[in-house]
Amino acid sequence: MTTAAGRPAVGAPLVERVLARYRERTLAELLRHIPEQSPPYLYDLAADYPTRPCKGLRAALCLATCAAFGGSPGRALNPAVTVELFHNAFLVHDDIQDGSELRRGEPTLPARYGVEVALNVGNATNLLGLRRVMANRRALGGELAWRLFEETELMCRQSLEGQAMEIAWIRDNACGLTSADYYRMCLKKTSWYTFLYPCRSGLLVAEGAGADAARLDRFGWYLGAAFQIQDDVLNLVGEAEEYGKEIAGDLWEGKRTLMLIQLLERATPAERARVVRHLSLTRSQRGPGAAEDVAWLLDRMTAYDCVAHAREAAAGLVAAAAREIEAVLAAAPAPTAVDGPGDGGEDAEEAAEARAFLLALPDFVVARGR
Amino acid sequence: MTTAAGRPAVGAPLVERVLARYRERTLAELLRHIPEQSPPYLYDLAADYPTRPCKGLRAALCLATCAAFGGSPGRALNPAVTVELFHNAFLVHDDIQDGSELRRGEPTLPARYGVEVALNVGNATNLLGLRRVMANRRALGGELAWRLFEETELMCRQSLEGQAMEIAWIRDNACGLTSADYYRMCLKKTSWYTFLYPCRSGLLVAEGAGADAARLDRFGWYLGAAFQIQDDVLNLVGEAEEYGKEIAGDLWEGKRTLMLIQLLERATPAERARVVRHLSLTRSQRGPGAAEDVAWLLDRMTAYDCVAHAREAAAGLVAAAAREIEAVLAAAPAPTAVDGPGDGGEDAEEAAEARAFLLALPDFVVARGR
Repeated sequence: MTTAAGRPAVGAPLVERVLARYRERTLAELLRHIPEQSPPYLYDLAADYPTRPCKGLRAALCLATCAAFGGSPGRALNPAVTVELFHNAFLVHDDIQDGSELRRGEPTLPARYGVEVALNVGNATNLLGLRRVMANRRALGGELAWRLFEETELMCRQSLEGQAMEIAWIRDNACGLTSADYYRMCLKKTSWYTFLYPCRSGLLVAEGAGADAARLDRFGWYLGAAFQIQDDVLNLVGEAEEYGKEIAGDLWEGKRTLMLIQLLERATPAERARVVRHLSLTRSQRGPGAAEDVAWLLDRMTAYDCVAHAREAAAGLVAAAAREIEAVLAAAPAPTAVDGPGDGGEDAEEAAEARAFLLALPDFVVARGR
Repeated sequence: MTTAAGRPAVGAPLVERVLARYRERTLAELLRHIPEQSPPYLYDLAADYPTRPCKGLRAALCLATCAAFGGSPGRALNPAVTVELFHNAFLVHDDIQDGSELRRGEPTLPARYGVEVALNVGNATNLLGLRRVMANRRALGGELAWRLFEETELMCRQSLEGQAMEIAWIRDNACGLTSADYYRMCLKKTSWYTFLYPCRSGLLVAEGAGADAARLDRFGWYLGAAFQIQDDVLNLVGEAEEYGKEIAGDLWEGKRTLMLIQLLERATPAERARVVRHLSLTRSQRGPGAAEDVAWLLDRMTAYDCVAHAREAAAGLVAAAAREIEAVLAAAPAPTAVDGPGDGGEDAEEAAEARAFLLALPDFVVARGR
């Protein structure tokens, strides 16, 4: 496994170990709160996506941030479950909206059960997330619970607005977008709920309702943009089996990726006209020549170095994220072991590992195969 | 306009006047909180359904309950807006799930903008509702705000579970349901968010976080069941123009109404087999004989007095609701005018009108043409 910049991802084994441990804890806690009494095709299916193979990155980031800044990760478990629930709800609704066939290597919920059931399952998953937000009150106190509620609402709003931007671009066939537009959309659609919200939640649990919860925002924002670009690149050139999604699906959907925006900027007028024409049609409107169009788009993106450029941009963002996390951690004293009874030594050990995890995460994010 | 029991609905002008006044206040407040800065096809469309012609029953019930129990309706305005927002979000998602064509006399959001946009608009409307729940903290204090948050979560849960029951019945082609099953589904799907939640919210605002918020539950539950039965009856026999929805759409969808459950109970074995066969097919699986099947179903429902029986059941529920609201109001002292400065006189007047509204509501609910 190598990074986007070609360096070996030295922290990968550590990152994978921490991810696996936190995922196990989070998933057990998540499943413990799925109601057993239920009409069929509701809460039972809310457990479907979370139990499919996945990294559990968002929950791990919440727990690791809490530990790295001196908090007990056990206190952040509920917020970590919240993050995962909202993430999975978002995936279910997203699969309805995109008409996707595969998610984490299996048929999507709408493909398997239809839109009617899947929409309810997405809503049920959101509601289970909201119940976890309510549960913070007893576990963490009213003040901190309100702060986490506010952060949750803000995250939902940002994700929804980012998603809406992307949908509107396709719907209105926006062909004059700049990379700045793309990055703004990324911040809202990807960075916020994948990085900023988990980090903010972890900081708040570690340091209390008065914490400066925004000081990992730049870290999260750079990392989220790199993550999204990498996701878009994998969609174009990844291996179907490893990636678990339809390859080049974005070109069929007309998704505005950094590569597509750059192709529109760099193409000759005749090529640009062909791209715009392809984008103006919905998937069902395209005739039998559609597959050829998609192959041509991919070829032109390669010819104009759009994929290579996107990889470079991701590498730059990863480097910036690495500098950010180093600076923020350097400014926060590392928790130290306390002599005497209790588990102070274990806490300090966990904090050190969490810090190493956060430091290794930037390289890991773009080195991932899926 | 006559009631289900054939009596004239004497309170109808009062109910309509109070509905109109409260709707105007609620809608203005609702629109004031729709963000102006937004990607297209999101918050702009969240204002669509609420501004179409409708009664605003749920918000009015919240405001009237607050006033009738001695509270200032102005303090309940935010909870009333919350009720309306969650209601409209539910309608948008419901229209996606049912593939409905018309809502309040115009094309539904999914029919006009597609599922992708409509799903986001439903989520945005839910999120705007959640923001109103958060706004209670500043306006009403933390304790009451948490109680209202809990009631909101409970309402969302009940509605979702009721919706899931109904979907599972169609999906699993449940043909042995009893009226008790139907009423349980009604309580969850209809009564809770249309009556119990608005009443509970109004009581909590009037009397504080420690109020016995459940004492209008039976009123709401009876009224909700009557309301749903009436809705189902109108779907079968209403006038398309006045009702604003597709006529007999429920028979096409295979919706488990009281009438359908009774037809399955009363039909001959041969008839029952034909009903079950019709229900086992999805709308798209049915051949050219489908319209004939639907007409036959309607004819059999009439022959077995299913519609008349449903109307009688609704009338019985309305009478029970009327007894409930009379008893609960009799046990609560009517607010009286206070001599001296301030608007005590106006408050007492508004309270008296709100009480009259609540008392007249049962008859009004089943007398409505839509």
